[in-house]
Amino acid sequence: MKFEELVKSSGEWLRADGPECGIVISSRVRLARNLFSFRFESHISSEEKENVADLVKEAVLSTSYARELCWFDLESLTELERHLLLERHLISREQEESAGARGVVVNEPETLSIMVNEEDHLRLQSLRSGLQLEDAYEQLSSIDDELAKKLDYAFDEEFGYLTACPTNVGTGMRVSVMVHLPALVMSGHIEKAFNAVHDLRLAVRGLYGEGTEAHGEFYQISNQITIGRSEEDILADLKAVIEGIVNYEKKARERLLGREPMKLEDKVWRAYSTLKNARLISSDETMRHLSSVRLGAQLGMLPELELKTLNTIFLYIQPAHLQKLEGKELPPEERDLVRARYIREHLS
Amino acid sequence: MKFEELVKSSGEWLRADGPECGIVISSRVRLARNLFSFRFESHISSEEKENVADLVKEAVLSTSYARELCWFDLESLTELERHLLLERHLISREQEESAGARGVVVNEPETLSIMVNEEDHLRLQSLRSGLQLEDAYEQLSSIDDELAKKLDYAFDEEFGYLTACPTNVGTGMRVSVMVHLPALVMSGHIEKAFNAVHDLRLAVRGLYGEGTEAHGEFYQISNQITIGRSEEDILADLKAVIEGIVNYEKKARERLLGREPMKLEDKVWRAYSTLKNARLISSDETMRHLSSVRLGAQLGMLPELELKTLNTIFLYIQPAHLQKLEGKELPPEERDLVRARYIREHLS
Repeated sequence: MKFEELVKSSGEWLRADGPECGIVISSRVRLARNLFSFRFESHISSEEKENVADLVKEAVLSTSYARELCWFDLESLTELERHLLLERHLISREQEESAGARGVVVNEPETLSIMVNEEDHLRLQSLRSGLQLEDAYEQLSSIDDELAKKLDYAFDEEFGYLTACPTNVGTGMRVSVMVHLPALVMSGHIEKAFNAVHDLRLAVRGLYGEGTEAHGEFYQISNQITIGRSEEDILADLKAVIEGIVNYEKKARERLLGREPMKLEDKVWRAYSTLKNARLISSDETMRHLSSVRLGAQLGMLPELELKTLNTIFLYIQPAHLQKLEGKELPPEERDLVRARYIREHLS
Repeated sequence: MKFEELVKSSGEWLRADGPECGIVISSRVRLARNLFSFRFESHISSEEKENVADLVKEAVLSTSYARELCWFDLESLTELERHLLLERHLISREQEESAGARGVVVNEPETLSIMVNEEDHLRLQSLRSGLQLEDAYEQLSSIDDELAKKLDYAFDEEFGYLTACPTNVGTGMRVSVMVHLPALVMSGHIEKAFNAVHDLRLAVRGLYGEGTEAHGEFYQISNQITIGRSEEDILADLKAVIEGIVNYEKKARERLLGREPMKLEDKVWRAYSTLKNARLISSDETMRHLSSVRLGAQLGMLPELELKTLNTIFLYIQPAHLQKLEGKELPPEERDLVRARYIREHLS
């Protein structure tokens, strides 16, 4: 797969056919792994980085998954292309912005990505539509087992997997779920929901991980504890919390529909018509409206709209995607114009 | 004509076929007159008011215009109906809110209204589409001449017509023109234009006269000096100023189209689609959007739209009109719902 094919292809999570996909956009599991014979990224030399990249690349491309995998060398990609990978959640901001030999292995449905020379030597990640934590983990676990036979993982009998940052030591596992909670936000119950999440020592973040803001009522919820518990327990706990939040959001939607249907319909139709008619629109504003439209589509107010269409817009209106589609770099004002046109074309 | 017929009929100015009707919504001329044998309204007894009303009504209904005229007794109308007459510019806020015997004579095309027992005993008013000051004045002058023969006008050889407020003494004439100046507002040149207007001792006001705010870039420009100049001079001066402002607005529109066509198109299409899709909308927000849509329609961005349609919406979305159309009193939230439905039906 060439980079240009990746630009036009769409990942499995975009199809929006996973369980609870109305509220759960995607599930993600990632494992942090390091190689015993190399220093952590914070102390590594650029020569060692190259060695790590070569070793890992060779190992990955000799697993049973090799045929469906593709290696992207981040050093040889442009800034725009790296940013596109970030927008797709295939690499992290850390990996986008760092320097030296680093890359990412991606499979065609974009359910799997293996970052090399991120904060850890390896970050294996599986991304799925809807609430599919077990499936995501299974895929990851299987390739992780194969790699463990080929690579000398830094593993300690007492601590488990050793990682660059102590917050990942143990399982090295971070499970995160992207949820869309417009009714909880509108009804003012989101704080209460998140307080419960924090009490369970889970983290709530914006769309692009740590330190980013929530746009358009989309949030990431993830585990903070990686040590002292099995992978299965971490998965099961997070799954239970998400199921609770999903139900909470569903009830909030019913209440909104029951109490102020017109106010809700007004918000949805204004958002939808703005997306369908604006000639200039920022990505922030688009996110806000997509959030309302997504809710409206699920409540049957905009019956002709498929979630898949909304997910596609959600992905392609981001700066790097837009610029790649246009085939050139664009200043922000021109992006607003191209974005508005893209949305109009895809909503009608 | 019964009141209910008036509710459904539409005045001449709504047709939007007068000269410069793209920018000049309407032209209005009014003459203040008082009867020699009665005290001014501020000192009048309720009995005298009744006498004034009877005398004026009889005189008006015996002019050559009588057949097309209709008398509305404001005391016997409901609060809502009086407010509807205000929204139509057929009576003033003063007359709406005062007490005692008072009424208004209206002709069917609503180009003429004669208020009785307003601040002055009589206020004759002519309202026309576009820039038609001379026509408006001619009609008024003709009925004023007839009335002068039947009624004993308070007239002084030195001062001219005597009026309750000294600011109207002399000709008793106020000429005002309602203009739509969105491009001057958008380009930040409106202040400069209005400074010139003030220097010429003309007044700029909102839609409903003194003390009201401008909504959606609609303004009233009127003379302040009523004495020491002939009616013809006052008319000619105001006309010249309005023509200047119209040209200024036209140039501002061309500049906007030349420099930032997309920004303008964006504003127009957002406004249009919000009007076509909102489920709840206030009159203030409607005015703002109508202003943008009106501009867009004239610049050919919304070619299927007629100014007449916009003027009709402009009139009927006002609180009293809406409630009269619905046949009942409505709290503001319900008006927002009915208003949004009315607009959707009339724009598609």
